[in-house]
Amino acid sequence: MPKVVIIGGGFAGLNAARALGGVKDVEVTLIDRRNHHLFQPLLYQVATAGLSPAEIAAPIRALVSDHENVRVLCGAVARVLLAERRVEGEFGTLEYDHLVVATGTEHTYFGHEDWEPFAPGLKTLAQATEIRRRVLEAFEAAERIPEASARKRLLTFVVVGGGPTGVELAGAIAEMSRFTLARDFRRIDPKLTRVVLLEGTDRVLPSFAPELASRAVRDLERMGVQVWTSSMVTGVDARGVDVGSERIESATVVWAAGVRASPLGATLGVPLDKMGRVRVEADLSVPGHPEVFVVGDLAHAEDEDGKPLPGLAPVALQQGRHVAAVIRATIEGKERKPFHYRDKGQMATVGRSRAILQSGKLRIGGFFAWLAWLVVHIYYLSGFRNRILVLIRWAWAYVSYHRGARLITDRDWRAFPPEAEADAAGEPPSELESTVQRTR
Amino acid sequence: MPKVVIIGGGFAGLNAARALGGVKDVEVTLIDRRNHHLFQPLLYQVATAGLSPAEIAAPIRALVSDHENVRVLCGAVARVLLAERRVEGEFGTLEYDHLVVATGTEHTYFGHEDWEPFAPGLKTLAQATEIRRRVLEAFEAAERIPEASARKRLLTFVVVGGGPTGVELAGAIAEMSRFTLARDFRRIDPKLTRVVLLEGTDRVLPSFAPELASRAVRDLERMGVQVWTSSMVTGVDARGVDVGSERIESATVVWAAGVRASPLGATLGVPLDKMGRVRVEADLSVPGHPEVFVVGDLAHAEDEDGKPLPGLAPVALQQGRHVAAVIRATIEGKERKPFHYRDKGQMATVGRSRAILQSGKLRIGGFFAWLAWLVVHIYYLSGFRNRILVLIRWAWAYVSYHRGARLITDRDWRAFPPEAEADAAGEPPSELESTVQRTR
Repeated sequence: MPKVVIIGGGFAGLNAARALGGVKDVEVTLIDRRNHHLFQPLLYQVATAGLSPAEIAAPIRALVSDHENVRVLCGAVARVLLAERRVEGEFGTLEYDHLVVATGTEHTYFGHEDWEPFAPGLKTLAQATEIRRRVLEAFEAAERIPEASARKRLLTFVVVGGGPTGVELAGAIAEMSRFTLARDFRRIDPKLTRVVLLEGTDRVLPSFAPELASRAVRDLERMGVQVWTSSMVTGVDARGVDVGSERIESATVVWAAGVRASPLGATLGVPLDKMGRVRVEADLSVPGHPEVFVVGDLAHAEDEDGKPLPGLAPVALQQGRHVAAVIRATIEGKERKPFHYRDKGQMATVGRSRAILQSGKLRIGGFFAWLAWLVVHIYYLSGFRNRILVLIRWAWAYVSYHRGARLITDRDWRAFPPEAEADAAGEPPSELESTVQRTR
Repeated sequence: MPKVVIIGGGFAGLNAARALGGVKDVEVTLIDRRNHHLFQPLLYQVATAGLSPAEIAAPIRALVSDHENVRVLCGAVARVLLAERRVEGEFGTLEYDHLVVATGTEHTYFGHEDWEPFAPGLKTLAQATEIRRRVLEAFEAAERIPEASARKRLLTFVVVGGGPTGVELAGAIAEMSRFTLARDFRRIDPKLTRVVLLEGTDRVLPSFAPELASRAVRDLERMGVQVWTSSMVTGVDARGVDVGSERIESATVVWAAGVRASPLGATLGVPLDKMGRVRVEADLSVPGHPEVFVVGDLAHAEDEDGKPLPGLAPVALQQGRHVAAVIRATIEGKERKPFHYRDKGQMATVGRSRAILQSGKLRIGGFFAWLAWLVVHIYYLSGFRNRILVLIRWAWAYVSYHRGARLITDRDWRAFPPEAEADAAGEPPSELESTVQRTR
């Protein structure tokens, strides 16, 4: 019976697997490096202590366990052999009749990968909790350290990249410092926190209409965020960021700037676009390989007027379901339909009761856009059991300004050899790193 | 005005600070290495994916922010100078008129500290999430790896130490494997999981009445836990545990055996007991230093018949409040009262609707003990905002066998230099470690 192998448990892969669940005479294997599906759009909430990891992530196994014909393997894929129709990885070798590649994108530092330690990206739960640790530890260190200059640096946060993630991160950090932490410190005044949002192009949120984008900028500035456009980062180190000739002294820098396609795409030996995404046919299959599909952020699919579709969750979700339908059609000898993206619009939140929403001709900002954002995100949140918890926590956070997950969970150097080794062997850590190490 | 310095934000320190909150003309500084107060009794729930870290921990600042006269410093204490009445640490130097030391205990491997990497203890959130990662990753690896022997080792879990923590851990792991994970895997049957509880003495739960302890053992065995008493661990490595001449092949070992007093106690230069705890006077002050107090697990206080008080949360909590009262009395020129422990009894849970409860003459086991356990723990849970969330999650977990926090959050090697260094410099990691590294 036909074997379907799906690589990647994000929105695209998970929904493809679910749509094939229960389809008789189809054997589905879903592969992911991690054991959980992550609700990426809310990851910034974990990084800013608004939500706990378990509230935006759910075990992939639990999400597909209803479907007897779907098997989950947690492990890394080494290579895909299109000619032999085989996938090799640490789980051994898998043969497929239909292959779905949905490994998405990763961060890129545009050739400056050495910046990463000082400006982590926001793609995984581990990165989110690390960013949370750095942000909270910065306030703690500022309260602890007497030198004014060090304090200034510790209370300066830089977010690089003016897309939705960057905007939402900057807004959330500003909001946390002004409301949540306001009463918690004695020596420092969190209200004096400086948040700088750096964008290389001439405007933030390029995917939104200009008037909505500038509405978001006004909201950010009202919350005390400095928005610098046309500001290319030329250097990042443990003590700050260089923007051309300007220097921003900062102990906490977050990278929300660039993404590139996951390397697996390039190994397929098929045509890529300049971002490394795989150019797919109208039915999302790979040219010359009707049995191989690429979906989600890794796919370069084009809409009616030949524009590439954006790397958004709804696109990935719809593509995942579509590819499942195409595979069913192929198995049943029916004809394959081309993929059409039904654009339901997009939204971004700028902190407490402020957001922007754009759908077709509709453009709204402010409280009602924020309400819509809230409803949509809670509705789509995976691992349904979490919805009620998230709803309660958010409701409470709204009335109380409280952020429940304000935890600095150290990576316990003493307990586990890799870090212990690093502690000895590692290069001189940044001030914060060392502070945290000493606090063991 | 009198300065009170409190070292340690556990049950003892936190409650001392709270009891001194709002007392006029008293300036309180609460110091902790970490930014959060941890509800230790439920830490095993985080290690077994039942609860999220944020549900059993709350920022110390948030817990005392109502009290203007209480300041929180997050940092490590270097030394205490009793003669000069000074505390030195990374926050600088603090002078005190009254000092409360409540730094608790840490794990000891009885001279085999090299076992720690292979058998982490359960004291911090970082350790709890690491144990969670190892437990969940073991099931994933077992599903992935074809060799039967490797699978057997991966599906064998060893808990060292038959105290409440060890019993609760073993029970929770067995429960998770038999109920939560039962339907999630295709190749392996989680029901075949082997859980071994090792205790060096001749019985588990020595602090409980024998009949209750054996009741707990029966419950454990009914859940498939093998309870080995009089079994001294003679070796631990990446592939298993040696018990005298016997060998248990296991990929996941957890250490719940021994604790020793925190090293700060020894630096005070005052009499210690053989466990390194500070022998305190009836009013919990240190001999010869009426202005210095030691409370909580670090203190060796004796009850009416000269028996040392156990290292339990209620003892620490009551001592914290008592020491606050003694300090107030001293400031107001009143006489100091000796500490009397009001024993409300103790309880331990052995998984789903099974627990034991002992209070004075009262001894109960089974469902009603479990209900009492549930009520008491939710009532005492710090960070009150979490209670309702925990209650809901537990109610849901009870009806659905679901465990919400089943996340393997990797320590993202690529993103942060210390691990990256370790990755290169580290000694050959255990099978699981390397699996996890490869899955990046």
